[in-house]
Amino acid sequence: MSEPLRTEPDLAPFFAKLDAARAASLELAAATTQQKNEALVEVAATLRAHVSEIIAANQRDIDAGRANGLSDALLDRLALTAPRIESLATAVLEIVGLPDPVGDVVRGSTLPNGVQIAQLRVPFGVVGAIYEARPNVTVDIAALALKSGNAAVLRGGSAAQNSNQTLVALIQQAIAVHGIPAAAVQSIDEFGRAGARALMQARGQVDVLIPRGSADLINTVVTESKVPVIETGAGVVHIVLDETAPVQWSVDIVHNAKTQRPSVCNTVETVLVLAGAAHRVLPAVGAKLAESGVTIHADERALALLPDAVPATEEDWSTEYLSLDLAVRVVDTLDEAIEHIRRYSTKHTESIITNDLGNAEYFLNRVDSATVMVNTSTRFSDGGEFGFGAEVGISTQKLHARGPMGLQELTSTKWIVRGNGQSRA
Amino acid sequence: MSEPLRTEPDLAPFFAKLDAARAASLELAAATTQQKNEALVEVAATLRAHVSEIIAANQRDIDAGRANGLSDALLDRLALTAPRIESLATAVLEIVGLPDPVGDVVRGSTLPNGVQIAQLRVPFGVVGAIYEARPNVTVDIAALALKSGNAAVLRGGSAAQNSNQTLVALIQQAIAVHGIPAAAVQSIDEFGRAGARALMQARGQVDVLIPRGSADLINTVVTESKVPVIETGAGVVHIVLDETAPVQWSVDIVHNAKTQRPSVCNTVETVLVLAGAAHRVLPAVGAKLAESGVTIHADERALALLPDAVPATEEDWSTEYLSLDLAVRVVDTLDEAIEHIRRYSTKHTESIITNDLGNAEYFLNRVDSATVMVNTSTRFSDGGEFGFGAEVGISTQKLHARGPMGLQELTSTKWIVRGNGQSRA
Repeated sequence: MSEPLRTEPDLAPFFAKLDAARAASLELAAATTQQKNEALVEVAATLRAHVSEIIAANQRDIDAGRANGLSDALLDRLALTAPRIESLATAVLEIVGLPDPVGDVVRGSTLPNGVQIAQLRVPFGVVGAIYEARPNVTVDIAALALKSGNAAVLRGGSAAQNSNQTLVALIQQAIAVHGIPAAAVQSIDEFGRAGARALMQARGQVDVLIPRGSADLINTVVTESKVPVIETGAGVVHIVLDETAPVQWSVDIVHNAKTQRPSVCNTVETVLVLAGAAHRVLPAVGAKLAESGVTIHADERALALLPDAVPATEEDWSTEYLSLDLAVRVVDTLDEAIEHIRRYSTKHTESIITNDLGNAEYFLNRVDSATVMVNTSTRFSDGGEFGFGAEVGISTQKLHARGPMGLQELTSTKWIVRGNGQSRA
Repeated sequence: MSEPLRTEPDLAPFFAKLDAARAASLELAAATTQQKNEALVEVAATLRAHVSEIIAANQRDIDAGRANGLSDALLDRLALTAPRIESLATAVLEIVGLPDPVGDVVRGSTLPNGVQIAQLRVPFGVVGAIYEARPNVTVDIAALALKSGNAAVLRGGSAAQNSNQTLVALIQQAIAVHGIPAAAVQSIDEFGRAGARALMQARGQVDVLIPRGSADLINTVVTESKVPVIETGAGVVHIVLDETAPVQWSVDIVHNAKTQRPSVCNTVETVLVLAGAAHRVLPAVGAKLAESGVTIHADERALALLPDAVPATEEDWSTEYLSLDLAVRVVDTLDEAIEHIRRYSTKHTESIITNDLGNAEYFLNRVDSATVMVNTSTRFSDGGEFGFGAEVGISTQKLHARGPMGLQELTSTKWIVRGNGQSRA
């Protein structure tokens, strides 16, 4: 299908990169766990050794972003500080410590006729990623792809171009030291939108494509891609406070889920309060949020208890603010809360705060989201927190992967069948 | 995305069916294993009790097909005989005996902060299938969907319309007896191509779409669908005979793989013979195939050893004959055979006949197909043979499922997270 694009002269270097990625993926699939781990240790060391170079490149992106009027939330996503670079290096080293999924036997058996079948984990081959201006994603995806034996073709946002270019060059330099071809991690930022479009058409050359970013970006990739897609991330995330919700847990968890890092997808965007709990919990929740400068968009009944709130509109229920804004609605029953979630949620993460075991189980069973929680902050819906070392993204689709994606989600399987002359009767 | 279609008056009954399927899927997700098994036992009994009715409906399809000039291979796929209906009923009962994947814990752990996470298997919800004139697929997919807690929306080929209509009505009647809504299994054949197109656009209403049939059909669905697709089936399947291949195994396995049921996707289409084995094995293989009336399409070197063969053209290497035709080519090295497979295979199933353990391992590792075999017939690449009871199809993509798909491949997962007040630091 990509053959017409292949003949466009401007895209010749793009396809040369894809071909190089395929060739590198064959070598990477044959690399030992030790070799991959040594390369990743080198990546971490190289990042640590070049902190000021990375910050300088990032600063050029930040300056350009500020000049172009990027919002504070987007500038926060874009920023690489020394502590953030250190946590990227730490995440890479955590991936070193994780078991290599390649070669794992998923299932196996000997059939009655003596034929032995075994399903093994294998790398996908070439993994594509399209994301926005978050340079940390470059390192996370490259490291997870390498450990799982995949080549990575990365299309980051143009707003992070300098940061990504520097990071990819450092990663390539590090892996080459350990015999892994530099082409195993490549950026295609220089081809702009034409490159992104060609990547989406490259069925057969790219095995899976992961979009990560805004709802718009994800929707575009899902709609246009001929390569199989794992849909990730937009998060209209809910917390439900029922009649038995402890005030302190409600205050702490809502505050944490909203303010700990408002610019990311697992931050809460809507709180649904049961009418029987509203008088008891909402004023305390509102007071704590006010301390952190959160603007509450409240429905009529919540507004009566939250004098500083602004009135919510229909649009608020489906908005992923990614900022210090929170929608609050009072509902009459738990079913009404679940129905609201069914209607407005992006099926990412939802949590209930409750002391009622029946309500907890009912909520866990009825809410059809990737991650459903009881009595804890939605900010835990994260690959790093789940112990995956880092994450490729959070899948909000049901095919292949759902929720935080780690190494295992970057593998496919292959059936190996051994016989000694058997035919089918 | 489907909202524009939703307002087309002709498709109103189509969307009513999808809505009913969604509602049924919620009840089915809550059904117990026992309830689903009792419904399936009833389905098998109902099929057995209505054999003559099914055959009569099928005969109308066969007559129409013959009048429309369907090939023998297609008529064979279409035909429902009493023994074939009995094996459908048997397959349904085998599914009853299989463990229910819903609720299985895939992974789980307690995080250092005391938060417990568990990944559970859950049904997809609504599974769509688009396939050609093979009424057995109707029963297989319906039964697998029911056992895995999914509603099934089926679009069979118009050539099997009478058969499918009868089968779906019998299945609906059977499941309703055990409290499962009839709408959990539905045919949308009456909406023709417009229905198939609307099904492909129904993102959010249909959770996964499985095309099963010709390369053309699959390609259309993969290209046009907005619903996540599991690509199945076209099989340009290879058998390699190396220098150490025993003559008897070569003869038996190639004959079995070509003639046991030539109309299905795991039948062999191309045999690649190492030059060093050609003189020793090809004449015997050719003689045995000639007994069954197989036409061999041979390259120049194979032609010298197979006087009754016809010359192969470039097109033969990528043809899925689904008939008593076989392409044969002599290659100089195992790498050349693997390179041929990389170029022409649909990545379904390949087998090597060899006594050389090194060659066997090399082939298993280097061939990137869903199922890779040593010393056995490609006809074993089948969900029933693998012990899955029946199969939804054979996935030739790497995402979610690869190779024969059974119950587990019809499930997604969901993370359940339980805390007691934890927030993220």
